[in-house]
Amino acid sequence: MTAQEKVASLREEMKKNNIDAFIVYSADPHMSEYLPAEWQERTWLSGFTGSAGFVVITSDKAGLWTDGRYFTQAPLELKGSGIDLFKDGIEGTPNYIDWIISETSEGATIAVNGIATSHANWVALEDKLTKHKRFLKDLPLLKNVWTKRPAPSKNAVFVHPIELAGQSVTDKIAAIREKMKEEGATAHVISSLDDVAWTLNLRGSDVNCNPVFLGYILMTMEECFLFVDLFKLDDDTELLMKKLGVFTKPYHNFFDHLGMLKNQSILIAPNSNQSIFETVKNNNTIIEKPVPGNLMKAVKNETEQEGFRTVMVRDGVAMVKFLHWLTHTVGKEEMDEYSIGKKLLEFRAEGKNFIGNSFGSIVGYKDNGAIMHYSAASEGSKKIVDHGSILVDSGGQYLEGTTDITRTFPLGEVSDEFKKDATIVLQGLIHLSLAKFPRGTKGVQLDALARMPLWKEGKDFNHGTGHGVGSFLNVHEGPQSIRKELNPVDLQAGMVLSNEPGYYVEGQYGIRHENLILIKTWKKTEWNTFYEFETLTLCPFFKSIIVKDLLSQEEIDWINAYHKIVQEKLAPYLDGEVKAWFENLVAPL
Amino acid sequence: MTAQEKVASLREEMKKNNIDAFIVYSADPHMSEYLPAEWQERTWLSGFTGSAGFVVITSDKAGLWTDGRYFTQAPLELKGSGIDLFKDGIEGTPNYIDWIISETSEGATIAVNGIATSHANWVALEDKLTKHKRFLKDLPLLKNVWTKRPAPSKNAVFVHPIELAGQSVTDKIAAIREKMKEEGATAHVISSLDDVAWTLNLRGSDVNCNPVFLGYILMTMEECFLFVDLFKLDDDTELLMKKLGVFTKPYHNFFDHLGMLKNQSILIAPNSNQSIFETVKNNNTIIEKPVPGNLMKAVKNETEQEGFRTVMVRDGVAMVKFLHWLTHTVGKEEMDEYSIGKKLLEFRAEGKNFIGNSFGSIVGYKDNGAIMHYSAASEGSKKIVDHGSILVDSGGQYLEGTTDITRTFPLGEVSDEFKKDATIVLQGLIHLSLAKFPRGTKGVQLDALARMPLWKEGKDFNHGTGHGVGSFLNVHEGPQSIRKELNPVDLQAGMVLSNEPGYYVEGQYGIRHENLILIKTWKKTEWNTFYEFETLTLCPFFKSIIVKDLLSQEEIDWINAYHKIVQEKLAPYLDGEVKAWFENLVAPL
Repeated sequence: MTAQEKVASLREEMKKNNIDAFIVYSADPHMSEYLPAEWQERTWLSGFTGSAGFVVITSDKAGLWTDGRYFTQAPLELKGSGIDLFKDGIEGTPNYIDWIISETSEGATIAVNGIATSHANWVALEDKLTKHKRFLKDLPLLKNVWTKRPAPSKNAVFVHPIELAGQSVTDKIAAIREKMKEEGATAHVISSLDDVAWTLNLRGSDVNCNPVFLGYILMTMEECFLFVDLFKLDDDTELLMKKLGVFTKPYHNFFDHLGMLKNQSILIAPNSNQSIFETVKNNNTIIEKPVPGNLMKAVKNETEQEGFRTVMVRDGVAMVKFLHWLTHTVGKEEMDEYSIGKKLLEFRAEGKNFIGNSFGSIVGYKDNGAIMHYSAASEGSKKIVDHGSILVDSGGQYLEGTTDITRTFPLGEVSDEFKKDATIVLQGLIHLSLAKFPRGTKGVQLDALARMPLWKEGKDFNHGTGHGVGSFLNVHEGPQSIRKELNPVDLQAGMVLSNEPGYYVEGQYGIRHENLILIKTWKKTEWNTFYEFETLTLCPFFKSIIVKDLLSQEEIDWINAYHKIVQEKLAPYLDGEVKAWFENLVAPL
Repeated sequence: MTAQEKVASLREEMKKNNIDAFIVYSADPHMSEYLPAEWQERTWLSGFTGSAGFVVITSDKAGLWTDGRYFTQAPLELKGSGIDLFKDGIEGTPNYIDWIISETSEGATIAVNGIATSHANWVALEDKLTKHKRFLKDLPLLKNVWTKRPAPSKNAVFVHPIELAGQSVTDKIAAIREKMKEEGATAHVISSLDDVAWTLNLRGSDVNCNPVFLGYILMTMEECFLFVDLFKLDDDTELLMKKLGVFTKPYHNFFDHLGMLKNQSILIAPNSNQSIFETVKNNNTIIEKPVPGNLMKAVKNETEQEGFRTVMVRDGVAMVKFLHWLTHTVGKEEMDEYSIGKKLLEFRAEGKNFIGNSFGSIVGYKDNGAIMHYSAASEGSKKIVDHGSILVDSGGQYLEGTTDITRTFPLGEVSDEFKKDATIVLQGLIHLSLAKFPRGTKGVQLDALARMPLWKEGKDFNHGTGHGVGSFLNVHEGPQSIRKELNPVDLQAGMVLSNEPGYYVEGQYGIRHENLILIKTWKKTEWNTFYEFETLTLCPFFKSIIVKDLLSQEEIDWINAYHKIVQEKLAPYLDGEVKAWFENLVAPL
């Protein structure tokens, strides 16, 4: 089927159901960042493969909204589909709801698939549509259009043992119930896959890069149910769950079971799918609050912290070997962005307990480095030769923890302008690394530290400075962040975040330096408990692109101290030519 | 009448009206920071004179809630009143609403005076009481108890001419109506006194330190009414208002007039008094949004900016003369905190167009400097001699603008610890002064710049870093701020803020350095429009308490550059011994 045929077929369904506009978000029932194959509805319908974007179909028009990362890729993929591109964030681009209103008449019915729409989004959408006398309906119209979906994954669910998780399921459930009590809740639904996995110390591989599995948890003060494809659990795991008081039920029974709840006060996160809310709202009270386990998950226990430290050595060794290979092979062998991403994976795969990439590697050579979430496909990826700079943002999943690192480095000659920018971005990373801050500090208060060196040059970067990172879980997790946005979550000891300022010159180069950092208690004074960051990531920065004259003594000291730690931790696992090269990289500035 | 008699009389009124608890907030109908004498109900009832605190009376108990600033003063003033002190912010102190709930039974009626309670506060209070089956009622019970109130001020309202205001009333009203249209409002109430004064380019003197007058504005798309005591307006002013299309009506007619509105969409700020909401809610739609003029007022026009620069010279000259007098007279003449505050006022009064203090001066000698909002009374104020440090936080109202400055300085020997702390606090002020930041930045993103030098020592200060300042208006104004709190207002060019980090060691000393800073456009780059701060305040810092070794070259350069400007601007107005002393103060570090 071509995209045109698919859209035509969807329009027939719309007509049958008296629907004037249908929205296809890029989402699954768990609001996952990476979608299982059977939920890639937007990609299937439009042909557009980007990670962000959604499609709106009316009786005679069709549009895809996506952001600046995909302004080059989207037109190519949409060619011939009859779907117009709407460039989000560009002046003059209509908001999609306004566009729907302008394309329909009063009394029109707009539909979405409620199970693949978050409640928060549904409410905002409905609110605006209703004000303009349009009505929102929950209809899974693509069910009868996309009939030959990939079969859902049958991959095994496996236990994440206490030796790695650091906290028992019993303790976690007790802690969640304690929070439910505080909120006056008698029942609780967990639908985000990493929260499901964390709560029950289970892992899976139903989606790319995230070691999670499709499942829902429904918890009351007495009972706990896991809804999951039962084929995925072996007898031992099922028995273990039973022992822990967790009853396993078929995944597809979730909504029936949920519908039986009556007179409960149910704690549900607003980013859960709308169908959950619809199912319970008439017979129960809903307490709309973030999943309590989400914050607990973000605060890593000692075992998890130690896990991070352990895998950083393996990850650092892989990175150093890769960097040595790349800088010494470039210009001699044929290579491109895609192939070196694969090569990096091979180096990582040599590490103990390595499971896979923690996200799709971003390898941006020269001007491709300026495309923020560039992901080189096997075809059309840029050939790499021995000049210019390259940005490599990658990470691994290990049983003991998750990594995420970016290094930007020269493959030959680079401009003075590039070196200056690379140094300024590094200053931002250093200033954030050096921060001390009292209990109660929020990420937004620290974000400017990483930006100020750029701001003083009239420069900036258009992404967040720091995101949470899971412990052998999703590489992007909440609720904390270091961003410009007003996130009310306090930074707490035990949280792991990325520290990743960047700078991007379109058509020329991109720079990003990224370490993972752990919040630790620094000291308690009469004023407060103060925190500091421990840098977890172990990998040198390239001194050849650091302009020493731009640095203060404090900044130089930080780089030297960091390189000293990197040397101590990684040198024992390196030898020969690689080691000699490495020792030179980490020598004092 | 003693406080006991007053409370007894209030209890009789409560009984008559079947009220189980009555709350007396410290507020007037305009939610002012400084209350007109006739609205100082809480002070009258309890005897407690602090700037923050409220009283709750039940049939057999009475309590005053106030914060740490008043834990010494409050017990003295409450003595014999039968009113218990509840220390806000101390662990174990019940929240007053919880306390009311615990002291009353289900079905109880709690009353407040709606006209002296903000709508936002009313809603929060009612919400919590209703959940616990208590009911909230609007009853002005003190009316029949406090019968001999001071007569309301009859002070003249006068015109703030366009030469000083920089924008005509016609323009302001047109701009407000434009915003009303955007919000879908057909009517608008302005009840905050500085917003009333700003909108109509009028000033008054009904309350201490703030050049405002009691008034309400009621605006539709066609009409604009000012409700004000008509005795305060001379014929010329009344005629001028008429010409501008502003109809003046008696202040006491406001609610009658408001009650006649029907089928309007009325824009009212949530911090307006509850009686306004009650009066219109049944026959109109209420749009709860900040007063549009509030943000306009915060963005100073060129004339107002120039006004600030002008008065800073006068204020700086007064400060230098005062500092010279104080440092050269101390130990030779008798003086105390109160008397030197009066002396400073005399120096300011020598300046052109000086109207009065912009707030009650804070003069804290030695350990009194650590009391953050200390205000020395004529009795009991500390004698000042020639050792230790002193903190002086003061400001003036001039026709062209408002000032607010704090300097901390030695009167003789001070400890090395004090010097170190004073230097670190100054570093915070400098770091904020040096910031550059893009459009869209919020104050919370910059707050940590002023704190980080302290945080790196495990120290902090428990107040905001920056508040907005009016243009010959209130010394504290919104909506912008530089604080830890998540204030969503963007910083914009033209806004004036204070930059006032501090550090306080209880029982020893307090340090605060405060300048006013103006946000200016620095440059437009391909990335964004970037802003910088211009320091408005002109007054030296005392080099004798700056530890040069702790400073970076950038910090030293800032101090020297600042002192150079101070020298250029103030020297022409100084002579003789004062000038010689001053030249030494501002010489390079």
